[in-house]
Amino acid sequence: MSISYDAFLSRAAEAMQQSPIRRMGTIAAQRTDLISFAPGYPGPDSFAWDDYRAIADRLFTERDDGLLQYGPTHGLRPLLEALVDLLANRGIVSPLENLLVTTGSQQGLDLVARTLFDPGDVVLLELPSYTGAIAAFRNAQATLAGVRQHADGIGTDDLQAVLDRHRREGRKVKCLYIVPNFQNPTGSLLSRAKRQWLLEWSARERVLIVEDDPYNDLYFEDAASSADTRPIKADDHEGRVIYLSSLSKTLAPAFRAAWVTAPASYIAKLDVAKQAGDLCSSSLDQRIAFEAIHTGVLARRIPELRRYYQHKRTVMEQALRRELDGVLTWPIPRGGFFLWAALPPHLDSQVVLASALEHGVIFVVGRAFFVDGSGGQFMRLAFCLPTPAQIDEGVTRLSAAINALGAEPPQRLAGALPKASSTPEPAVADR
Amino acid sequence: MSISYDAFLSRAAEAMQQSPIRRMGTIAAQRTDLISFAPGYPGPDSFAWDDYRAIADRLFTERDDGLLQYGPTHGLRPLLEALVDLLANRGIVSPLENLLVTTGSQQGLDLVARTLFDPGDVVLLELPSYTGAIAAFRNAQATLAGVRQHADGIGTDDLQAVLDRHRREGRKVKCLYIVPNFQNPTGSLLSRAKRQWLLEWSARERVLIVEDDPYNDLYFEDAASSADTRPIKADDHEGRVIYLSSLSKTLAPAFRAAWVTAPASYIAKLDVAKQAGDLCSSSLDQRIAFEAIHTGVLARRIPELRRYYQHKRTVMEQALRRELDGVLTWPIPRGGFFLWAALPPHLDSQVVLASALEHGVIFVVGRAFFVDGSGGQFMRLAFCLPTPAQIDEGVTRLSAAINALGAEPPQRLAGALPKASSTPEPAVADR
Repeated sequence: MSISYDAFLSRAAEAMQQSPIRRMGTIAAQRTDLISFAPGYPGPDSFAWDDYRAIADRLFTERDDGLLQYGPTHGLRPLLEALVDLLANRGIVSPLENLLVTTGSQQGLDLVARTLFDPGDVVLLELPSYTGAIAAFRNAQATLAGVRQHADGIGTDDLQAVLDRHRREGRKVKCLYIVPNFQNPTGSLLSRAKRQWLLEWSARERVLIVEDDPYNDLYFEDAASSADTRPIKADDHEGRVIYLSSLSKTLAPAFRAAWVTAPASYIAKLDVAKQAGDLCSSSLDQRIAFEAIHTGVLARRIPELRRYYQHKRTVMEQALRRELDGVLTWPIPRGGFFLWAALPPHLDSQVVLASALEHGVIFVVGRAFFVDGSGGQFMRLAFCLPTPAQIDEGVTRLSAAINALGAEPPQRLAGALPKASSTPEPAVADR
Repeated sequence: MSISYDAFLSRAAEAMQQSPIRRMGTIAAQRTDLISFAPGYPGPDSFAWDDYRAIADRLFTERDDGLLQYGPTHGLRPLLEALVDLLANRGIVSPLENLLVTTGSQQGLDLVARTLFDPGDVVLLELPSYTGAIAAFRNAQATLAGVRQHADGIGTDDLQAVLDRHRREGRKVKCLYIVPNFQNPTGSLLSRAKRQWLLEWSARERVLIVEDDPYNDLYFEDAASSADTRPIKADDHEGRVIYLSSLSKTLAPAFRAAWVTAPASYIAKLDVAKQAGDLCSSSLDQRIAFEAIHTGVLARRIPELRRYYQHKRTVMEQALRRELDGVLTWPIPRGGFFLWAALPPHLDSQVVLASALEHGVIFVVGRAFFVDGSGGQFMRLAFCLPTPAQIDEGVTRLSAAINALGAEPPQRLAGALPKASSTPEPAVADR
């Protein structure tokens, strides 16, 4: 019995779309035996439960006044100092005034969008790209211009062409958004040569780079090294790179502990935007995150996590080769959480998803990550959350689901399928 | 050696102003003996430390998968269910789909601003009003139209006049923002008659009401009752009221656990905006907050907190009568965290603040809360954080600071004072 709010909504709100697949989410929730390759969630059996319990116990016993209080908007001082050291290990020199703690990297992306984009400003980003960034940029009413990717990352020719085309149209191109390390959704690793090229391009073309790097530490030692994941920001001596990273993948997502590194004057703007956005991130979460760094929990866990996710990657990869070799194609992930699989040209991932759901397995359709509406033949298979046994069984089910479609032309099946909008909810499923 | 970001900033970012008084904050931090009536922070000795320790220990031992994981954007299900009951106790019927958990009420205000306001849309609000709301509305480039207050709350004649004037100018007036219970900064309580009047006015004029109610439970039993604090929302049968409240004042600010109640279709919009804003609030914080409600910690604490803050209010009030009767005037707070004092006409609170700082006490100048630049004669004295002994001593110092100014005309002192912009940082100091 409520009045309609339609007449009260802002233009930004009118354009916001409820994420697809509440319906499919409901179906999924009804099947307790479902195996999900959808969410980019860390495996909870990898969390340092005992360490967090000990840390929390000590903190609540010591009763530092600040533990449960409002904190500074820019973040808890000890955590910021720890982040300075953490960044130094990645080759990034970042004094305190260049840092801002954010409530997850998602808030960092949102603050960047609000402080950079006027409606119609152009942001360049990879095809495909992270849905959370897409949503934040769209909410700021930016124009999203996709750039094709190759095996070694973003296509530099296409990047230049897309930039030039928008400039010819008189548009302001503010930045390139990029996830160089084990990109969400493709898992791809940007080559070292292209990192250097992008930095020079950024200076030449006066375009900022927004570098989103949540998976930096999670390279797989059988295929990559820390030299491969050196951030673009590490070689940025002019402050052209806005660098975001997070502890969600290495400590735990619950703490919502992430940060932005950028020139101090811009951090001051982000700080003001955050003041009005949520005043401050959780003091308790920040303190636990700090203690986990300070007491060596993070440093101890990182090599373990590399092995933990590498093993899951290997299990998925071997199962795919056993079950779907010659049907799917995929690059072998060298780090991160995701395997990006391409279907044969006659199959659309939306069609496969419907069959997969019937067979008890789900994933995210590729189209969700493409700002140009393409990507219908791709599937993002996240190997981070399920156990190795579930991964193996999930791939078997996926194989059965694809085989069930056989040589039938996909249009024959369309009537029996969920609508095209019924894809797993990206904003929560992602990261 | 960074490039300038000036050419890259959005118009919203250009308009964002760094909160005043980093400088005074620095001075304050250097004086360890300073007594602060500035921040609207709960007293940490009132926190349920032992209960939180026991809850955290149990949660980290039980290892529920969701505890450290990403959670649903709209909030943790058990917490939402607990909020339904909590709201029912305030007379508000709110099914689950009418609720959204936010990262502090500040995020609620920000999401409301972004989903309601296009640049130039008008929001009506009290003179003075909460600075955090002012900042969130300004960041959405709304036009802020102040309405005068009386002892029993907002002036209804002035409200109508301001509305009519903006409508004559062809402006869209989207909502009235109001804090009916123990308003920040005045501490005033909106009369029951005016609550009913506003609801009828809202329907008649087709203006939404954004009701911000963080202090609902914290009435003082010597001067008010739960009947006096019944939310406007409780009698809203048409969904015209967007209601915000929080556990920051009763459990602890660190948990950033707050919520919005509004019609389900509008909550769905806020949910989408929050997805891109921070994905989800901290799962750990939400779980601790839920457990604190579920195990009766909150219900047990509320009467204790009423007495705790009432006592501090009484100590401040008695000290003011002893030291500054006839100099300052103030209404006696009937709840909440703040006492709102008026200086004699010849004294500006900025001048008094400079003298107060020299005498070892600070507060927030009234002008920070007025969107029309007025309010120079007011001071917000927060009695929530200091101990009773500190409150007494702080008022003695304040008295000495004011007496030191004596009959000297304030302009004589101006040269020796911090600049007018050097007031305590509101965004953190407030709430």
